[in-house]
Amino acid sequence: MTRAGNFFGPQKNTNVRVSLPAVCFVWQIAMIVLFGVFIRYDEESDAHWVVYKKDHNVTDIENDFYFRYPSFQDVHVMIFVGFGFLMTFLKRYSFGGVGFNFLIAAFGLQWALLMQGWFHSLDHTTGKIYIGVESLINADFCCAGSLIAYGALLGKVSPVQLMVVTLFGVTLFAVEEYIILDLLHCRDAGGSMVIHAFGGYYGLAISWVLYRPNLNQSKRLNGSVYHSDMFAMIGTLFLWMFWPSFNSAITDHGDGQHRAAINTYIALASSVLTTVAISSMSQKGGKLDMVHIQNATLAGGVAMGTAAEFMITPYGSLIVGFCCGIISTFGYLFITPFLEKYLKLQDTCGVHNLHAVPGMLGGFIGAIVAAAADESVYSKEGLINVFDFEGDFANRSPGTQGGFQAAGTCVSIAFGLVGGAIVGFILKFPIWGDPADDNCFDDEVYWEVPEDEETIPPVLEYNNHMIHKHQEISESNFSVEQS
Amino acid sequence: MTRAGNFFGPQKNTNVRVSLPAVCFVWQIAMIVLFGVFIRYDEESDAHWVVYKKDHNVTDIENDFYFRYPSFQDVHVMIFVGFGFLMTFLKRYSFGGVGFNFLIAAFGLQWALLMQGWFHSLDHTTGKIYIGVESLINADFCCAGSLIAYGALLGKVSPVQLMVVTLFGVTLFAVEEYIILDLLHCRDAGGSMVIHAFGGYYGLAISWVLYRPNLNQSKRLNGSVYHSDMFAMIGTLFLWMFWPSFNSAITDHGDGQHRAAINTYIALASSVLTTVAISSMSQKGGKLDMVHIQNATLAGGVAMGTAAEFMITPYGSLIVGFCCGIISTFGYLFITPFLEKYLKLQDTCGVHNLHAVPGMLGGFIGAIVAAAADESVYSKEGLINVFDFEGDFANRSPGTQGGFQAAGTCVSIAFGLVGGAIVGFILKFPIWGDPADDNCFDDEVYWEVPEDEETIPPVLEYNNHMIHKHQEISESNFSVEQS
Amino acid sequence: MTRAGNFFGPQKNTNVRVSLPAVCFVWQIAMIVLFGVFIRYDEESDAHWVVYKKDHNVTDIENDFYFRYPSFQDVHVMIFVGFGFLMTFLKRYSFGGVGFNFLIAAFGLQWALLMQGWFHSLDHTTGKIYIGVESLINADFCCAGSLIAYGALLGKVSPVQLMVVTLFGVTLFAVEEYIILDLLHCRDAGGSMVIHAFGGYYGLAISWVLYRPNLNQSKRLNGSVYHSDMFAMIGTLFLWMFWPSFNSAITDHGDGQHRAAINTYIALASSVLTTVAISSMSQKGGKLDMVHIQNATLAGGVAMGTAAEFMITPYGSLIVGFCCGIISTFGYLFITPFLEKYLKLQDTCGVHNLHAVPGMLGGFIGAIVAAAADESVYSKEGLINVFDFEGDFANRSPGTQGGFQAAGTCVSIAFGLVGGAIVGFILKFPIWGDPADDNCFDDEVYWEVPEDEETIPPVLEYNNHMIHKHQEISESNFSVEQS
Repeated sequence: MTRAGNFFGPQKNTNVRVSLPAVCFVWQIAMIVLFGVFIRYDEESDAHWVVYKKDHNVTDIENDFYFRYPSFQDVHVMIFVGFGFLMTFLKRYSFGGVGFNFLIAAFGLQWALLMQGWFHSLDHTTGKIYIGVESLINADFCCAGSLIAYGALLGKVSPVQLMVVTLFGVTLFAVEEYIILDLLHCRDAGGSMVIHAFGGYYGLAISWVLYRPNLNQSKRLNGSVYHSDMFAMIGTLFLWMFWPSFNSAITDHGDGQHRAAINTYIALASSVLTTVAISSMSQKGGKLDMVHIQNATLAGGVAMGTAAEFMITPYGSLIVGFCCGIISTFGYLFITPFLEKYLKLQDTCGVHNLHAVPGMLGGFIGAIVAAAADESVYSKEGLINVFDFEGDFANRSPGTQGGFQAAGTCVSIAFGLVGGAIVGFILKFPIWGDPADDNCFDDEVYWEVPEDEETIPPVLEYNNHMIHKHQEISESNFSVEQS
Repeated sequence: MTRAGNFFGPQKNTNVRVSLPAVCFVWQIAMIVLFGVFIRYDEESDAHWVVYKKDHNVTDIENDFYFRYPSFQDVHVMIFVGFGFLMTFLKRYSFGGVGFNFLIAAFGLQWALLMQGWFHSLDHTTGKIYIGVESLINADFCCAGSLIAYGALLGKVSPVQLMVVTLFGVTLFAVEEYIILDLLHCRDAGGSMVIHAFGGYYGLAISWVLYRPNLNQSKRLNGSVYHSDMFAMIGTLFLWMFWPSFNSAITDHGDGQHRAAINTYIALASSVLTTVAISSMSQKGGKLDMVHIQNATLAGGVAMGTAAEFMITPYGSLIVGFCCGIISTFGYLFITPFLEKYLKLQDTCGVHNLHAVPGMLGGFIGAIVAAAADESVYSKEGLINVFDFEGDFANRSPGTQGGFQAAGTCVSIAFGLVGGAIVGFILKFPIWGDPADDNCFDDEVYWEVPEDEETIPPVLEYNNHMIHKHQEISESNFSVEQS
Repeated sequence: MTRAGNFFGPQKNTNVRVSLPAVCFVWQIAMIVLFGVFIRYDEESDAHWVVYKKDHNVTDIENDFYFRYPSFQDVHVMIFVGFGFLMTFLKRYSFGGVGFNFLIAAFGLQWALLMQGWFHSLDHTTGKIYIGVESLINADFCCAGSLIAYGALLGKVSPVQLMVVTLFGVTLFAVEEYIILDLLHCRDAGGSMVIHAFGGYYGLAISWVLYRPNLNQSKRLNGSVYHSDMFAMIGTLFLWMFWPSFNSAITDHGDGQHRAAINTYIALASSVLTTVAISSMSQKGGKLDMVHIQNATLAGGVAMGTAAEFMITPYGSLIVGFCCGIISTFGYLFITPFLEKYLKLQDTCGVHNLHAVPGMLGGFIGAIVAAAADESVYSKEGLINVFDFEGDFANRSPGTQGGFQAAGTCVSIAFGLVGGAIVGFILKFPIWGDPADDNCFDDEVYWEVPEDEETIPPVLEYNNHMIHKHQEISESNFSVEQS
């Protein structure tokens, strides 16, 4: 009767009563100490702004806050409600889907502020990191990599393991981002490369190392019910609607943000139609599959992560969304089962099809669009502005930029695969409280789950009553006859 | 035992495995071609902005993106989560409610960018349409008309039919909008006329043509359950909260947006109280009806669609909300049943009471407020600014403007009724895969619906077990006695 | 079989068919009259803005609308979806949770515009109140106090009582706010004192007066089910995500809003980790409790309500969140049961732990941070700017300011306790239609609740069928034997 099966041999110890609080406390205290040493307000969020304004002859509305805060809040919703609810589709892992997403994002963003600060905005004269609204957006972005990885691991790992995944995920993210954006001088505002390709392959590599041959023992829980699919649609829609903000949140003020939002909006619309088309074609009777609608409709947004701020043109955006909707839906239909059967790779949410492949494609699309850029389309100043051809990179040509963009994509994939493999091996130590194979996808392992007495409607109680009555009658009959 | 009844004669063919993908692919490819020919970035989203800025002596913050993007995102949420989740109230049509809403909005916004572009912003020298953030808002608005129509048809049509409804709906919208806004020079920022009155009557006319005399065969599914009502409240609240953004999204910079938001906020608050009052009065014991709370509370926002940007005064807004909450709730109580019984008009979501009537009222309220405008209230410049009395219309008086506003309302209703009737007849061809009467309101027709094993709690399995046991006992008894 | 028990003696009369509509109509009409007499658009939302712009040499983007509207919409979502869905966690009171929240917020914000207007922005020459976007934010804030109080009363009061709670709650709020912000010249942008401490103690005092000794008669309904916990997480997450907007919505333009958002973002992240740690430590097996995750994770935001706009430093924010997550979770574990057992205080949502205590702490944290302010950190102009040391208060020192902040906290608590006790006694009159003890936490008292036929899956119908069959057989057996 109990959901946690005890019949398949010795149970794993899933008690995290010591390890989870210990990890939370130690890491949170470390954050406090490191924030105390390193993190300060930047000039736009410091009380000295009133002086700065006068000195630099700017007004309040030119504070970066007003350029980016609405987009920041949209990104924030994507991270916590979007990713969180997208992972509630399993019938009995909705608490874990949204709850652990909440936990690791809340930890990850703190660690991200530090890691990204050290790599990108450490002031070497004062030794401090100065943060503002753009830092918050970047911290949310940085978490996204680890949340994507969680999608591949959903239901199969403990919260302690997820904290480890996030600690290393954020660290690796900051390093690859430094290499790609600073050393290779790539543009990747919406993170096709640094977020999606990295996060997707990071999660897949971990899941590959943690392969569970007997996972079908919890097959009964690895699926959705009607209402859990509806909760997942909340996640899907908030991701879909706010993706234009995701891709435009940290692009250049003015045309950069404007264009990135338009391109992403258009690409996403196109993805929806091709997803529906392929989903309907693939099923008997042309019925649509919620898994496709919940995921593949987002592929256009992922694939526009790099190119959205470029002059890809509106119809170029449509084509990207068109192709990625098809590719992603095919992924759910054929590649995920193939990976599970032949590559021993269990990918609960199908992040391969939603993040890894569209992210990689997005990186290469960005490379092509960058290589094709010229002054007739961008104007001379526009070209410098969009690709930041200044300082050490003043003489870089669009063609060269395209090559570096492609190289950046490869770097992100390599970081994901190698980093994920290493983290996967760390997670194999039998100390993390992960569930047994027959215990996966079940909230009862890590959550106090309420009794569902409401699912016993009155008529059932009546049935029970009648059954007992018959039982008595039958038994009396039986005894009469026996005698 | 299966939900799709097979007992009422020959089943209709609801297989859309060919038609749905075909429509999606053909229309999406057409969009790509047309976007390639016509659609370009406008000067504020083009990489030339850096040059434009210098030439016109403006700064980044004066890019229209920063005036309108937050409102755009709110409108976007209303279209996809607001309308989508509002239509999830049916117990077994939640996938169709939110999923088909997603599909047709994603298609509609692309077609709207083209249609509205041709009518409103085609540059005749270059033959191109230049788009920016305001185009995106208008495209979302244009979809709203067809989504409202979907509300009347919910559960009774196939996704292919909905694509047809949207294709024609967007087309008709663009034409009536051109007539009302450009030729008649009406003001209708929040679309009481062009969106709500048009969309409502468009849907009602289609539904009237598609009347199903035997719809009561699926009566068991035409209602809500506890949790589906909660999902619908998500839609209601996001519509209610963001309606101030809807009505202010494309009004004038500065006071126009500011005033429209305030007026809508106030009117909506007032609608809630009168809706609750009438709902409570109408039921035995004063119990509230979720249908009213989910819908009639929004009537104030619909009815302020035209007048929100005018100087209607805060108490004027309160009065509008007060009356429309009452009228809309009465509509759900008396008019919808009346329409169904005597006019053969089946209106699943009651769009008559939420969109058609409040939209029409909103048009006439706008006419009255416009006619009453004078310089003492608006100032001379304010009057010109609010009503755009410039160019060909420089000499128009407020009184005349009021007359044209009223005429515009009639145009929108006429377009809705005539256009809807024509589209309804097109949809009667037996090629669209619509469901049979006993098959309506059922997701199983067009969706892969997960098995709901979770609704069988352990105690039931126990019951089954006991029943079988008794069966054996009873049967053994019976056989004993037989012998 | 019916949920509303009739077995425990004479039922209370919960019929609100006269009283609820009467209250709604009378109060809404009163609002229309008072708005007509008092409320007008301010200069930034009036059609004269076009003249004002020229006179004051400002541009449209400097309209306060663009500084505050995105934050306003976030706050609006917190009030209606955040508070509303947070209160849907009960298995059979979700309609009441989100629906009555909707009703009282919609009434409260109208009354708040008047009350706050009279106290804060009444123009004594014209006798009018001029409203703009900041007024709307303040009105939403003012409602929040009463919505917090509703959390303590959830499931135990009638909608008519809630309207009374809100009428007095908003009135008391405006008075205490006037004393704290204007007379004592405290800073409290996010309302730790004026909103959370006041609202929490107001609700607790009412609940204490309305103590129900036999509330355990409805114990079966005072808990969650799986899906209701998921709905509550929607509320939690929207509150959590948008709290930076809550605390920054009405702070100073520029650095004030920027810094408040950063501090709140950081504090909230820290709360999540310590909440998870304590929740896991407290349960056998280290399992997490949804009650803690839904509530205590928000404590950091409450506690930063006063200090968020000060130079509390990022690590200071982390420490606040760290401590409040712990304190709040301990509250749910130990203090709420203690209050119920020994102080006869029934607090359905645990507002004591989420609002009252963190709000009070937030007030004192604000006092300490204010007292510690100096020119080296803020700059001379910054100090004047942040604490508004101008006019009558030009000579106030930070130390004095700290003292006044602490005094303000005490004022808010006193208002909450005394006001709540008085309102509680008013609510004891037997005319308000409140439910009997065995009828609490049940939507069937005030709502038309749909039949849940969907929870009877096909297999059950089969069972019923079999049972009847057996019954016949058994009975025939029985009769045979009888004969």
